[in-house]
Amino acid sequence: MSEFGSLESRVRRKALLDKVKSPEECVEFFKDGMDLGWSGFTPAGYPKAVPIALADHVEKNNLQGKMKFNLFIGASVGAETEDRWATLDMIDRRWPYQTGKNIAKGINEGRIRMGDKHLSLFAQDLGYGFYTPKIDIAIIEVSAITEDCGLVPTSSCGVIGEILMIADKVIIEVNTGQPSFEGMHDCLIPQTPPNRQPFLISSSNDRIGTSAFPCDPDKIIAVVESKHRDKGRAFADMDATSEAIAGHIMQFFGDEVKAGRLPENLLPLQSGVGSIANAVVGGLAQGPFKNLTVFTEVLQDTMLDLFDSGKLDAASACSLSLSEEPGFPRFFENWDKYADKIVLRPLSISNAPEPIRRLGCIAMNTPVEFDMYAHANSTLVGGTRMINGLGGSGDFLRNGYLKIMHSPSVRPTKTDPYGITCVVPKAPHIDHTEHDLDVVVTEQGLADLRGLAPKDRAQTIIDKCVHPEYKPIIQEYFDMAKKETLAKGIGHEPQLFDRCFKMQQNLAQNGTMRIKNWDINIDLCE
Amino acid sequence: MSEFGSLESRVRRKALLDKVKSPEECVEFFKDGMDLGWSGFTPAGYPKAVPIALADHVEKNNLQGKMKFNLFIGASVGAETEDRWATLDMIDRRWPYQTGKNIAKGINEGRIRMGDKHLSLFAQDLGYGFYTPKIDIAIIEVSAITEDCGLVPTSSCGVIGEILMIADKVIIEVNTGQPSFEGMHDCLIPQTPPNRQPFLISSSNDRIGTSAFPCDPDKIIAVVESKHRDKGRAFADMDATSEAIAGHIMQFFGDEVKAGRLPENLLPLQSGVGSIANAVVGGLAQGPFKNLTVFTEVLQDTMLDLFDSGKLDAASACSLSLSEEPGFPRFFENWDKYADKIVLRPLSISNAPEPIRRLGCIAMNTPVEFDMYAHANSTLVGGTRMINGLGGSGDFLRNGYLKIMHSPSVRPTKTDPYGITCVVPKAPHIDHTEHDLDVVVTEQGLADLRGLAPKDRAQTIIDKCVHPEYKPIIQEYFDMAKKETLAKGIGHEPQLFDRCFKMQQNLAQNGTMRIKNWDINIDLCE
Repeated sequence: MSEFGSLESRVRRKALLDKVKSPEECVEFFKDGMDLGWSGFTPAGYPKAVPIALADHVEKNNLQGKMKFNLFIGASVGAETEDRWATLDMIDRRWPYQTGKNIAKGINEGRIRMGDKHLSLFAQDLGYGFYTPKIDIAIIEVSAITEDCGLVPTSSCGVIGEILMIADKVIIEVNTGQPSFEGMHDCLIPQTPPNRQPFLISSSNDRIGTSAFPCDPDKIIAVVESKHRDKGRAFADMDATSEAIAGHIMQFFGDEVKAGRLPENLLPLQSGVGSIANAVVGGLAQGPFKNLTVFTEVLQDTMLDLFDSGKLDAASACSLSLSEEPGFPRFFENWDKYADKIVLRPLSISNAPEPIRRLGCIAMNTPVEFDMYAHANSTLVGGTRMINGLGGSGDFLRNGYLKIMHSPSVRPTKTDPYGITCVVPKAPHIDHTEHDLDVVVTEQGLADLRGLAPKDRAQTIIDKCVHPEYKPIIQEYFDMAKKETLAKGIGHEPQLFDRCFKMQQNLAQNGTMRIKNWDINIDLCE
Repeated sequence: MSEFGSLESRVRRKALLDKVKSPEECVEFFKDGMDLGWSGFTPAGYPKAVPIALADHVEKNNLQGKMKFNLFIGASVGAETEDRWATLDMIDRRWPYQTGKNIAKGINEGRIRMGDKHLSLFAQDLGYGFYTPKIDIAIIEVSAITEDCGLVPTSSCGVIGEILMIADKVIIEVNTGQPSFEGMHDCLIPQTPPNRQPFLISSSNDRIGTSAFPCDPDKIIAVVESKHRDKGRAFADMDATSEAIAGHIMQFFGDEVKAGRLPENLLPLQSGVGSIANAVVGGLAQGPFKNLTVFTEVLQDTMLDLFDSGKLDAASACSLSLSEEPGFPRFFENWDKYADKIVLRPLSISNAPEPIRRLGCIAMNTPVEFDMYAHANSTLVGGTRMINGLGGSGDFLRNGYLKIMHSPSVRPTKTDPYGITCVVPKAPHIDHTEHDLDVVVTEQGLADLRGLAPKDRAQTIIDKCVHPEYKPIIQEYFDMAKKETLAKGIGHEPQLFDRCFKMQQNLAQNGTMRIKNWDINIDLCE
């Protein structure tokens, strides 16, 4: 028996104990070409035992490329599952977000057909049957199964509800290798229009659902015990750049409070992942704002610091994505301190426009790059190479009260410490448009774009955000583009389509975006 | 006294009769540089008497360029106001949408600083003070003023509520030249977060507000009688192309009903403006679907036909934008037939993600162009020249149950009947991304993109939507882009940045997008 309770104690619907199987015994259920739905979200709460057993099976029997699946999961899952599956050529379609070197390689070499979508839309559309009319097998990690066959999630809710709506068969992984998360979730499977109900959330910790997702017991084909923990990432370190960005944002918040446009405890915070997000959370832990709340997608280790600072009253998210060390052990040891203040919600609600706009979230995310008109690229490096996916950035950036993107102004390449500018004349791929962003920030400064017309926006971004190494280059382009288009009466938002990507082309060919001039690209034409 | 009731009968708050002025007497209130907020929406319900008097004043006294204003209005207003103001150099900033040759000229030549935003965001952000901390003078057209100083709108609600939140002074135009619209509106001024309330709309004709917008009587500086009617556009004729597109959409709706993904009476329809939208509404009037509902932004003449067909049960919109002839006379003569079935809402609610997503609207809009990955350009011809603005397309396309864009596959230029393809390799400006659209349609066919990865999406769009004159050209580009990027492991969404805009450049230089080859553009480099 586990120190956290036996399988028998976790499975309170006793008839299901007849369906207990080993992960290896589940392998036979899977056939090439099946549509699979997993629990899990940014790697928290995903099934591990069965996916690992399936990978072992494929590897041992040299079935690479002969057992390929379509994977529908709330977001990324641990590398020991999807990334290993990618190396074993076990993935055909993959929606809507992923992490891992090998899966990214498969996607960008054309072997894996990945698609991404705003996560709130992915969740509901999956339930509507837009991706596949049915899920052949669902694999759901749970803390417990209730007497009436309710599935109590673990560290995330993801798209469990929508998967269950369209799943033919369900395999349950009961995780007895960690405490039960029962009571932390607010489970609800939204109805399909025209019967969809209001989500009556008026503060971050309001609850509108129940503690488990109802599941038809006849669909359950196996119950598997698992002791695998989430392989969460340790958080990125802060650096001087991130701290400078966080400083600009703290200053901005203070100014907005003074102007009467933000209350003294701000509004519910949504924060992406990474070093800048961590620096912002760090800034808040040390800052003047109290009684903060969080309404976001993913809670990471730094949120524990913010709770410990006494300044955070409540947090809502789709997943508790702590690091394997030291995050989860710290959380489990101080359960009572954190658990009551956290609500884990289904993706279809954590990211729904309705509560985000009603609560008035402050949305903060890091793009790959943004351009001088504030179009942002969140997904495709160089305009074509997928990193992870869109995630929920668009859900929050479109619906927040304040919509902020932050990025270092430059990144190094192998040959040039200032080889890449993250503020470009024209983004080669666009996930968020100029109509979505209010504020962009780099370590150079913060540009408040609210109410600015495109050319005013461009000048403000150049003045405030562009690195000094790039300021004359981008200013020259902007001046040239204005001159050429305004003269022709086509200059609302000037661009020159024979030159707008010259910096990106130079990067691909010469390892830096610092171009010498804006002459039309004869060298690239030859 | 007007045949529709006297000014005295319309102004039920009698103390305000002391503030009755002529439009000319109001001119003195206006100073150069002021921020003005008007009622009105796509030209319905906008003030006319005072703006016309101001224009006359400027023209008569040669004040062009010496009396410039910042205009914040829900959307476009009649040409006799904003477009004439543009010719008189009376506009500095203009948000968020406009119509008219002269205002467009001013914008694209850099004299008028226009900005656009998703209309639902514009509405709320105006009230939050993001565009200007205060409106110096509001000019609001009303049907009546109630005893408790409630403003009863005319043919649109627009952003009256948000303007009143931040207005210093208010001028009221009471329109006695047409019947009162009292009772048709559902007025509500949403609170600012964290106090914003749920919008408990569960069907198109649910009402959650009151019949008038409360106004502080002390802010009212003048009450002006007006008899000007809205200068609404007559609807565009249908043509074979529009009818073919409508046919594909009707077929698709039927298939979705059969597949169980749409109920038999469909879901609330949102439809843009123009000939394709009219053809779709025409198709519905003759089609098999009954008990339809509409939840949209603008109701136009064709909606009267749909009501007359007996197939439309209810319609919600921000404005009733009928034509001056024959739309409004037809509507006024048959008031009882239509009035009970129509709810006019504030823009902040007609376009709010919350009801749009809950009701599950079917969103249909026409872009300037879309590309092979389903990024769409709704605003800037050639990527830089503003037409009208973003409007509410993004509110509906991001939040609808089904997100559809429709366009002819080609448009003529002066020298080539197939000079412009509306399906391009890469859109030169993007307002809606690949993450927002489910379906794209041309007269060639309908591409259902749900669940497709980018390269599968591109092939489907090329196969189904591209005109035969352009199919080999775009296929060649796509094949070439795949080949070059996949080989380098950067081919999730292939593009070639040295060639992706060659068709657009050729159009600018040679009057057609039908290029002879995809060679890197030496001729354009010389």
